[in-house]
Amino acid sequence: LIKVDAYLEMNGTGNLMDFLDEPFPDVSTYEDFHTIDWLREKSRDTDRHRKITTKSKESYWELIKSLLDAWSGWVVMLLIGMLTGTLAGVIDLAVDWMTDLKEGVCLSAFYYSHEQCCWTSNETTFDDRDKCPQWQKWAELMTGHSEGAGAYVLNYFLYVLWALLFSFLAVSLVRVFAPYACGSGIPEIKTILSGFIIRGYLGKWTLLIKTVTLVLAVSSGLSLGKEGPLVHVACCCGNLFCSLFSKYSKNEGKRREVLSAAAAAGVSVAFGAPIGGVLFSLEEVSYYFPLKTLWRSFFAALVAAFTLRAINPFGNSRLVLFYVEYHTPWYMAELVPFILLGVFGGLWGTLFIRGNIAWCRRRKTTLLGKYPVLEVIVITGITAVLAFPNPYTRRSTSELISELFNDCGALESSQLCDYVNNPNMSRPVDDIPDRPAGPGVYSALWQLALALIFKIVITIFTFGMKIPSGLFIPSMAVGAIAGRIVGIAVEQMAYHHHDWIIFKNWCRPGADCVTPGLYAMVGAAACLGGVTRMTVSLVVIMFELTGGLEYIVPLMAAAVTSKWVADAFGKEGIYESHIQLNGYPYLDVRDEFTHRTLATDVMRPRRSEPPLAVLTQDSTTVEDVETLIKDTDYNGFPVVVSRESERLIGFVQRRELTVAIKTARQKQDGVVSSSVVYFTEDNPQVAEACDPQPLKLRRILNLSPFTVTDHTPMETVVDIFRKLGLRQCLVTRSGRLLGIITKKDVLRHMAQMMNQDPESIMFN
Amino acid sequence: LIKVDAYLEMNGTGNLMDFLDEPFPDVSTYEDFHTIDWLREKSRDTDRHRKITTKSKESYWELIKSLLDAWSGWVVMLLIGMLTGTLAGVIDLAVDWMTDLKEGVCLSAFYYSHEQCCWTSNETTFDDRDKCPQWQKWAELMTGHSEGAGAYVLNYFLYVLWALLFSFLAVSLVRVFAPYACGSGIPEIKTILSGFIIRGYLGKWTLLIKTVTLVLAVSSGLSLGKEGPLVHVACCCGNLFCSLFSKYSKNEGKRREVLSAAAAAGVSVAFGAPIGGVLFSLEEVSYYFPLKTLWRSFFAALVAAFTLRAINPFGNSRLVLFYVEYHTPWYMAELVPFILLGVFGGLWGTLFIRGNIAWCRRRKTTLLGKYPVLEVIVITGITAVLAFPNPYTRRSTSELISELFNDCGALESSQLCDYVNNPNMSRPVDDIPDRPAGPGVYSALWQLALALIFKIVITIFTFGMKIPSGLFIPSMAVGAIAGRIVGIAVEQMAYHHHDWIIFKNWCRPGADCVTPGLYAMVGAAACLGGVTRMTVSLVVIMFELTGGLEYIVPLMAAAVTSKWVADAFGKEGIYESHIQLNGYPYLDVRDEFTHRTLATDVMRPRRSEPPLAVLTQDSTTVEDVETLIKDTDYNGFPVVVSRESERLIGFVQRRELTVAIKTARQKQDGVVSSSVVYFTEDNPQVAEACDPQPLKLRRILNLSPFTVTDHTPMETVVDIFRKLGLRQCLVTRSGRLLGIITKKDVLRHMAQMMNQDPESIMFN
Repeated sequence: LIKVDAYLEMNGTGNLMDFLDEPFPDVSTYEDFHTIDWLREKSRDTDRHRKITTKSKESYWELIKSLLDAWSGWVVMLLIGMLTGTLAGVIDLAVDWMTDLKEGVCLSAFYYSHEQCCWTSNETTFDDRDKCPQWQKWAELMTGHSEGAGAYVLNYFLYVLWALLFSFLAVSLVRVFAPYACGSGIPEIKTILSGFIIRGYLGKWTLLIKTVTLVLAVSSGLSLGKEGPLVHVACCCGNLFCSLFSKYSKNEGKRREVLSAAAAAGVSVAFGAPIGGVLFSLEEVSYYFPLKTLWRSFFAALVAAFTLRAINPFGNSRLVLFYVEYHTPWYMAELVPFILLGVFGGLWGTLFIRGNIAWCRRRKTTLLGKYPVLEVIVITGITAVLAFPNPYTRRSTSELISELFNDCGALESSQLCDYVNNPNMSRPVDDIPDRPAGPGVYSALWQLALALIFKIVITIFTFGMKIPSGLFIPSMAVGAIAGRIVGIAVEQMAYHHHDWIIFKNWCRPGADCVTPGLYAMVGAAACLGGVTRMTVSLVVIMFELTGGLEYIVPLMAAAVTSKWVADAFGKEGIYESHIQLNGYPYLDVRDEFTHRTLATDVMRPRRSEPPLAVLTQDSTTVEDVETLIKDTDYNGFPVVVSRESERLIGFVQRRELTVAIKTARQKQDGVVSSSVVYFTEDNPQVAEACDPQPLKLRRILNLSPFTVTDHTPMETVVDIFRKLGLRQCLVTRSGRLLGIITKKDVLRHMAQMMNQDPESIMFN
Repeated sequence: LIKVDAYLEMNGTGNLMDFLDEPFPDVSTYEDFHTIDWLREKSRDTDRHRKITTKSKESYWELIKSLLDAWSGWVVMLLIGMLTGTLAGVIDLAVDWMTDLKEGVCLSAFYYSHEQCCWTSNETTFDDRDKCPQWQKWAELMTGHSEGAGAYVLNYFLYVLWALLFSFLAVSLVRVFAPYACGSGIPEIKTILSGFIIRGYLGKWTLLIKTVTLVLAVSSGLSLGKEGPLVHVACCCGNLFCSLFSKYSKNEGKRREVLSAAAAAGVSVAFGAPIGGVLFSLEEVSYYFPLKTLWRSFFAALVAAFTLRAINPFGNSRLVLFYVEYHTPWYMAELVPFILLGVFGGLWGTLFIRGNIAWCRRRKTTLLGKYPVLEVIVITGITAVLAFPNPYTRRSTSELISELFNDCGALESSQLCDYVNNPNMSRPVDDIPDRPAGPGVYSALWQLALALIFKIVITIFTFGMKIPSGLFIPSMAVGAIAGRIVGIAVEQMAYHHHDWIIFKNWCRPGADCVTPGLYAMVGAAACLGGVTRMTVSLVVIMFELTGGLEYIVPLMAAAVTSKWVADAFGKEGIYESHIQLNGYPYLDVRDEFTHRTLATDVMRPRRSEPPLAVLTQDSTTVEDVETLIKDTDYNGFPVVVSRESERLIGFVQRRELTVAIKTARQKQDGVVSSSVVYFTEDNPQVAEACDPQPLKLRRILNLSPFTVTDHTPMETVVDIFRKLGLRQCLVTRSGRLLGIITKKDVLRHMAQMMNQDPESIMFN
């Protein structure tokens, strides 16, 4: 609208009488599943800003209002950070409790998790941290026996039952109250941030239901994580607080700036990595990321992280999800297994993406999609039944990862740290030399190998079901298991064969040379990278977890290898694949368009099609316009001088045209079907008195439509669409209008060029 | 050229005979002090890439070549990282040695610095780390007396003499060999990265001379740092390695991607903060920063950091410049002094920018600019004479900052840690309670206050002289001094008045509540932020120095306050101010253009000016064209259907036109002055046999010039220029050509709107 306003200013107030005194109705909103026009949103915001600045010079009250307006961005960030942090804390606490509820209950207070229960008990000893009389397994509580086959079966049965109950509740809530709450949400958020409208996707109901069902889904023990959904939850919070300020609620472009920052806050609380969160938002999620947003995202991410720490769900006042501290450096020769882990990560990424997409496509096209509740129940049943016997799959996946990342200190009591100690040696706690593996380690290895296969298979089927499901944690688990296995193998090889040439230089007997936990971490990074194709943000998140630059080279080596291997099998990460599967109109910033087509090949109408629907500046009647609106569903129409010359003068939006004609018919005397619609600058000359009153609509005419010539290479057109966020672009040759290219046409053309199915794009 | 090529493909080879078999000369380079056309560079790269991809299917050799091409980006990054890291290490070592040379010499090996000298000596005790017989001050060496007035005067005299010698050498080398080696270089690099050509600015000579003179300038004890110039040095390395690969050397757009990454490597080695370096490049320096560059920058920054660590110039195998470890948390109440430090930082930023710009303007406009060598000598003399008596200004600025950042541990022997110890108390080393200050602290306070005033004044005059000079370190020094003074004041207040209400809650007697070193760090961040207006990168760099998220809130509070305070007095940071002062054509991404002007107000020709110089598609003769080229200095000319209809059909570059006509005159028979130049698609009909042979030039015609309508708001035009990196844009109305807007016009208009001097823009 700014263009019209500016025009009015310059040409006096001659056209102001068009609609008498009636204020122009608000036609600035977009319809559902439509794309937004970034340039227009930006114009509108500048206009708003200009008004406030002008007004602020008038009085102190207006000055204060303008200052409040300038501060509102920071207030929104603060609120988002605080709510996101709080929700993340609540989710963590609830998940902890409900996960343990599957196994037993705390007698002193039923709302205590296993750890909290034994922590508050006086009868807990350091060596038996996990056991205390207050915490009873179900079998013990019901039958009084904690050992034996009967107790095992009862526990097994109740474990499966609880899991089924949780997942049934989750899927039912999603089905009934908020269908948008399913999945990870990141593909949809990427699409929304790129300028698409999906009403209700970030609504209050989605926020509430996604938070509740996320707890249920994670607690049910399914192979899914909470990281992706947390980003969705954070974006819902962002959307919620946008509605408090008209600056953000009325401008889709500004709203997206807030949502980008909210995504950063989401990752920040998911891992306790604020910088990684901001980079994740920048690298992976956001589309339009001005520097102002960078700074605000950082603020929101920090507030969220500190709010979460204040709630302290992990009970250790650490910020990060997996806190690790290693005591030995890594050696050059270890880069070989690290790179192998990278290759594994890339292969896993490819396998997962292909498998999962194939399964999701099957779900979309076959009967399977009709029974989402049954699907969830069946998968939960299979998961629970298979998971219970193996201690590494029975516990929650984050605990598993945490244990795999850990270095075996002197005080570790886990099976994985069951090494044969040399009784003669007393060394400081944090410098234990490599030791031979004990029987515990060997049995752990077998169980881990089984867990690995189980996780790989079940995750492919789990991601994409109608419950909230993230894939960060399952991916990391796969990588961590594989990494730990490799790590132990290398460690034992180095211990038993330290005369081999590869170990000779760096691994003397009695030295601590290999840290299997580091291998687990490298494997986790590689697998996560293979699936999501994150690079910088991945390394930075891992860096924030370890807190030192020491291990950044192994992580980078694995991340780069994994990305290259995975890219060799297909350029798209899991999010892009899901965007494509769902046909969202997403113009990826990273895709390079390198084909030699021209605008003329893409524009419509094609040669066989009827000519473009245009309006003329002074010879179309109201009836013609109404017919055109009824017969077509285009978002707008170009206006030309005359049908003969076809010289373009502007573009008019369908919505604005409809409203303008409707208003004029109601309010303006003499406007009838045969009235001529004028888009010209001068007042039309009414030839005879009996002619119907003309309708002047120059006010709604966009006098600066975006044009390219028919010879413009498509790569330039794609670049323009991406960088300026256009909805459509007109094609001219020597000033004559030839056709139109919409974002849909661009996406279709790109899909065609890549031999994909161009019809799948959902779009208007 | 891609547009033409694509066109040729579509229209057969009819025009290929225009220049017979002669290959088309290379007209793709830009002249000095011209802006580049990003869209065109991008097109050219896509074209090149396409050719390689097509060829790679032909043979294995071509496949290998295409793989090498794909990998060359990583190779360049590796080389840049390694060279930048090495140079930074060499600079650090040389500065260390030469700074100490001003005071004395090592007898065991003259090339040892003071610290190395005493470190290798066997006679050094832990308590007297700084003293060893091998290290002799000049007076001691010459006269044999190390104490007394005579020795002091002799040392003083030699200190000043060395300083004058170093700075004289530095300024002479810059004057004679590489005038571009002066200053910090960041304003120029920002301009270059935004798409401007300054030949030789990143050349080999500049690299060599800047490295050498940087060492001399820093060693001379002037109030300047090496951080900014290191970015320049890194960019020179980037440019150097670009020339190895035609992919980068022949494409100005691709070259700038490499330079962005090199800037990240520069900051990475300056502070030992790779992530901060990447964010600095992203936030502060770069213009076009695609995601691929982000990943590569990170790689280059890491390689550089690890190379530097391998050289280990600080002798402690730490990566970071100032390693700090604090043992106590901070308290909410301390936010008040932190925010006050932020205000101080903002005020210092404003004072520094205004004072420095005023002084630099004076240098440009008065006689002062004629005597750069004298200026450097005088300022060095003043600096050295005033600096020697004060121990806090005599030493190098980085050492000073390091000491100010440090927490006073039990083993600290410096004057700043001269607290009165309670002899009865034995506590662990790193948990020392607050103690009353001893006489050393009080005298240190006075000296620090004097040093603060001295640094504030002298830095304003130093930055901008004709020697390499960075302002990170002096700014941080100002902040660190102010912060430490405030810190000690708060500490002593808390010790002596712990019954006051503000201290009551968190500072019991015998507790360690205030860490003055943290105040120094917060002050340094605030002052650096005030001068440069960095935000995220500043906090991340500081975070990497401390290595923990613990102190990020104080740092953010100070950085935000400082930015807000400084912004209230003027939006521009020091780099933008210098860009403006020098009149570089820099289109700032962060400036919001909010005025209501339209394209028609900015385009040329204005109403009073002669009409636009255009060519017609089929009625201009070779002579007309040559006259036009001679009479005007435009970069290109629009081509229209005819002078009557003025319908635009394309745009032709001046350079290409000149070359084409010259080539045709030499090679093509029958082309004479009266030949008609044709830009049409069809072959021209030669009316009679005696008519001169026509010259067909459609091949060099850009058929997709960028156009906007005259009603397009300037904010949209500015946005288009910024995001697409245009050189010029044609203005039309209903298909008729009205005028042209160049980047220069846009910048002039923006300067006019901000009431600045529009004539200062250096530009073509």
